[in-house]
Amino acid sequence: MEHAETKSGNGAVALLKALHAGGARICFANPGTTELTLVDALADVPEIRSVLALFEGVCTGAADGYARVSGQTPLTLLHLGPGFGNGIANLHNARRARSAIVTIIGDHASWHLPYDAPLTSDIESLASPVSVAVVRMRDPQAIGTDVARVLEAAAGAPGGPTTLIVPTDIMDVQVDPVTVPVAPPARRTVGAAHIDKAAEFVTGAQDLILLLGGDALTEQGQRAAADIVAKVGGRVLMEPYPAIVPLGGDLPPIERQAYFPEDVIRQMGEARVVLAGALKPISYFGYEGFPSQLVPDERLLCLSDPAEAGVAALEALAARLDGAVAAPAAKAPRRPTARAPDAPLSADMIVDSLVQQLPDDAIISLEGSTLGGPWLRNAGHARRHRVMTNTGGAIGQGLPCAVGAALAAPGSRVVSLQSDGSGHYTVQSLWTMAREKLPVTIIIAANHRYGILQTELNRVEAPLEDPVIASLTRLDNPRADWTALAAGYGVEAVRVTTAGEFDAALARGLSHDGPLLIQAELP
Amino acid sequence: MEHAETKSGNGAVALLKALHAGGARICFANPGTTELTLVDALADVPEIRSVLALFEGVCTGAADGYARVSGQTPLTLLHLGPGFGNGIANLHNARRARSAIVTIIGDHASWHLPYDAPLTSDIESLASPVSVAVVRMRDPQAIGTDVARVLEAAAGAPGGPTTLIVPTDIMDVQVDPVTVPVAPPARRTVGAAHIDKAAEFVTGAQDLILLLGGDALTEQGQRAAADIVAKVGGRVLMEPYPAIVPLGGDLPPIERQAYFPEDVIRQMGEARVVLAGALKPISYFGYEGFPSQLVPDERLLCLSDPAEAGVAALEALAARLDGAVAAPAAKAPRRPTARAPDAPLSADMIVDSLVQQLPDDAIISLEGSTLGGPWLRNAGHARRHRVMTNTGGAIGQGLPCAVGAALAAPGSRVVSLQSDGSGHYTVQSLWTMAREKLPVTIIIAANHRYGILQTELNRVEAPLEDPVIASLTRLDNPRADWTALAAGYGVEAVRVTTAGEFDAALARGLSHDGPLLIQAELP
Repeated sequence: MEHAETKSGNGAVALLKALHAGGARICFANPGTTELTLVDALADVPEIRSVLALFEGVCTGAADGYARVSGQTPLTLLHLGPGFGNGIANLHNARRARSAIVTIIGDHASWHLPYDAPLTSDIESLASPVSVAVVRMRDPQAIGTDVARVLEAAAGAPGGPTTLIVPTDIMDVQVDPVTVPVAPPARRTVGAAHIDKAAEFVTGAQDLILLLGGDALTEQGQRAAADIVAKVGGRVLMEPYPAIVPLGGDLPPIERQAYFPEDVIRQMGEARVVLAGALKPISYFGYEGFPSQLVPDERLLCLSDPAEAGVAALEALAARLDGAVAAPAAKAPRRPTARAPDAPLSADMIVDSLVQQLPDDAIISLEGSTLGGPWLRNAGHARRHRVMTNTGGAIGQGLPCAVGAALAAPGSRVVSLQSDGSGHYTVQSLWTMAREKLPVTIIIAANHRYGILQTELNRVEAPLEDPVIASLTRLDNPRADWTALAAGYGVEAVRVTTAGEFDAALARGLSHDGPLLIQAELP
Repeated sequence: MEHAETKSGNGAVALLKALHAGGARICFANPGTTELTLVDALADVPEIRSVLALFEGVCTGAADGYARVSGQTPLTLLHLGPGFGNGIANLHNARRARSAIVTIIGDHASWHLPYDAPLTSDIESLASPVSVAVVRMRDPQAIGTDVARVLEAAAGAPGGPTTLIVPTDIMDVQVDPVTVPVAPPARRTVGAAHIDKAAEFVTGAQDLILLLGGDALTEQGQRAAADIVAKVGGRVLMEPYPAIVPLGGDLPPIERQAYFPEDVIRQMGEARVVLAGALKPISYFGYEGFPSQLVPDERLLCLSDPAEAGVAALEALAARLDGAVAAPAAKAPRRPTARAPDAPLSADMIVDSLVQQLPDDAIISLEGSTLGGPWLRNAGHARRHRVMTNTGGAIGQGLPCAVGAALAAPGSRVVSLQSDGSGHYTVQSLWTMAREKLPVTIIIAANHRYGILQTELNRVEAPLEDPVIASLTRLDNPRADWTALAAGYGVEAVRVTTAGEFDAALARGLSHDGPLLIQAELP
């Protein structure tokens, strides 16, 4: 256990210094009046970088992206219950991603709360569903222990977003130096007996799938999984919505768990499935006629749960298995789409172009099925990069996650592969990209419809052409002009309709000093 | 008690028909996969109008505006916990406005919930803080009673937003015809003994203030209050943030309760204060050195609380008082700001121009202090109109509230007086305005800063020029181009910098067939 001590000051300064001592380096802020003492304190603690956003969902999504890429614990600063409300969707995703975040909410002075002023609300009730810990500060002398509680819960195993409610009267008082007992979290080790059991399970399998998720999806985990299937046969899959996964370059091939239950059932076949950091395969939604759990328990073995050390478990299992290591599994050959420069643009063409052009060590923020599925089927052929996906299904994640990724990895190019419908929810992200001059290339898949809703309605044979159904699933009246939206927020933009235009725009975006948005018109 | 009966169909159709039978006529929707059976059902129940928005906060804010203007109960259709989360800020305001709303949330099939699929969340915990009732449907045969519960709670006295959680397995089953016991809510009548007590309180006052809020702020309530002060002397005030208040034309003068505690204390002086539909005057935030409650109980009398019939109470009190009715209080003379057409634009010039040009029966959606305070000090000089204010302090209300108002009052011109900082939170409202061709004139007070935060920081003498504080309160790097944002969402727009340009743009906007946005540059 380390100990860090802060100097004296008011409660707000002491709080920020304690968070800094515990590892916080950045604060995504959209403050209001009850946070102004903290705003003032941020001026006294410049070692925590302040980044302003025009909407709270940008703050929480950016914190999520920052946490995924850096492995550190960023802060957000939000205004009371309603401001927090706007951050809930992306904190829902962050909780599924197990991203370490501390959200600070300034609350009314404790003596003012009983009067039920207009902005008073039940913050605990709002915060609990998306927080692994909610702490209300009550004693200025307890700042160190309160900070330690949220930091340990956030960065714990498995960890996740936490909420720290700070009444203004705690921030205003002078406090003594604060000691922060920082206890670095540790994942539980999987025991040798369980590795033996897993070895028996995999060697007895006719068909084997290693399903990786969480920490097991790192490069080291993927290579250990490849070693295992090289010894005993089988396939390596990733969970359907990873928080962050390295792909491409010389990494071994990895397949993604499918979306619809019938596809998962077909994909899994009769294989035995080993879970390393991944959850049991379940259906994304409950569909009449399909089970919720898509592989029965008797064909499942959990090698490591999300709170356990998955990489070490995979390596121990690989070492435990007999047999010479065979040649690593080969990637399927790449078949680029046939195209002419003036061919109307398609999702596959976008993916082909990006496979060619993506620079080393790029980070892709992926939201929406139009480009998401095609990219994850082809990412193995690109240069080495990392992909963040929408872990919790709350839309409006892609653009802010790209903001956070760019701030966490200043040397990397960030590409936002973004469906247009979901892009609108946090469109204000563009302003923070322009303000911070972030090297983000935003590709808007502009098909002007809620494609996933049409896909799901087709499944149940609903009449897509019915005027009411069409009005609730099509976004073509009017069509949003993303180049104008980008200009409104200070981001350069270009609209493309052909393969050739897209190739050129992407080349320009990937070398652009700052954000550039490409509105890619799709059918 | 009325009864309405629906025809048979699946649960979703039965639910919508029951809501229609109970008075619902419009649904502001941003649906996802768990709402698709309801989307399909909306096609079968076209008597409920479906209006799509690109963001949930637009749906809830529009429902709030619709409820305030129409007095009816609109629906919103939102997607699970995260989609609901994006609607919380404006439901917070709607709860303070006591607006009757039923929010429908499709949830996973009840048998799928235990598997904790990605979008699963604790909807009840999220909904409770902003709902006067939360009902989870569990039995398709109970649709009628569940609908009656939310409709009665929503339109009750005082009423407010309600949440109806509908699992997909309730929507999919065939159900028998549904009977909806619709019990129109009634406000409690204030008894004669209490009127006597109030008469004694007001006649014994050296100085008297009638503080009106809620239902007492109708024309009838304002005229009854004017009768009272004409008999016994005193002033009529309105609560600081009315849900909706008629002003201008031949209505008697009415002053607004101030914002800062020192101003309220000065405004109230030593007066006895009678509350009709208004809450006790309290400080908006807790400030060290000021009490939370700004008028002591011994100088307060509550004539009617928000659940009581305030207008009838005021009329009874007026009738109970002796003395001939004096001449009604005269409005203060109007002093327009001196101006030349090429003078740089100011907030006062905008207000002057609007006082001159506002047409009869317009509705103003007011958000932000830049234009809000000046308008409410001058509204009495304009033609007869109604003003909606931000009741709960959750920002991002103004634009969506204007959407709802325009749909509720098709013959009226709607003017959105909107600060730029708060406008960004629900900027997607512009798309729905364009789509529905709503006659909304949007005036963006573009000072490119969070003015209220700077005002509050000035109070505590914080250094506004400090780089960190400046970066968290100024929006000038980059400056948003609202004409481009409007174009992006299909709305015509113009940027003005002088009084003359503003006058011309306003004239154009007020006669424009559809929405027009004026970016009014202010210092």
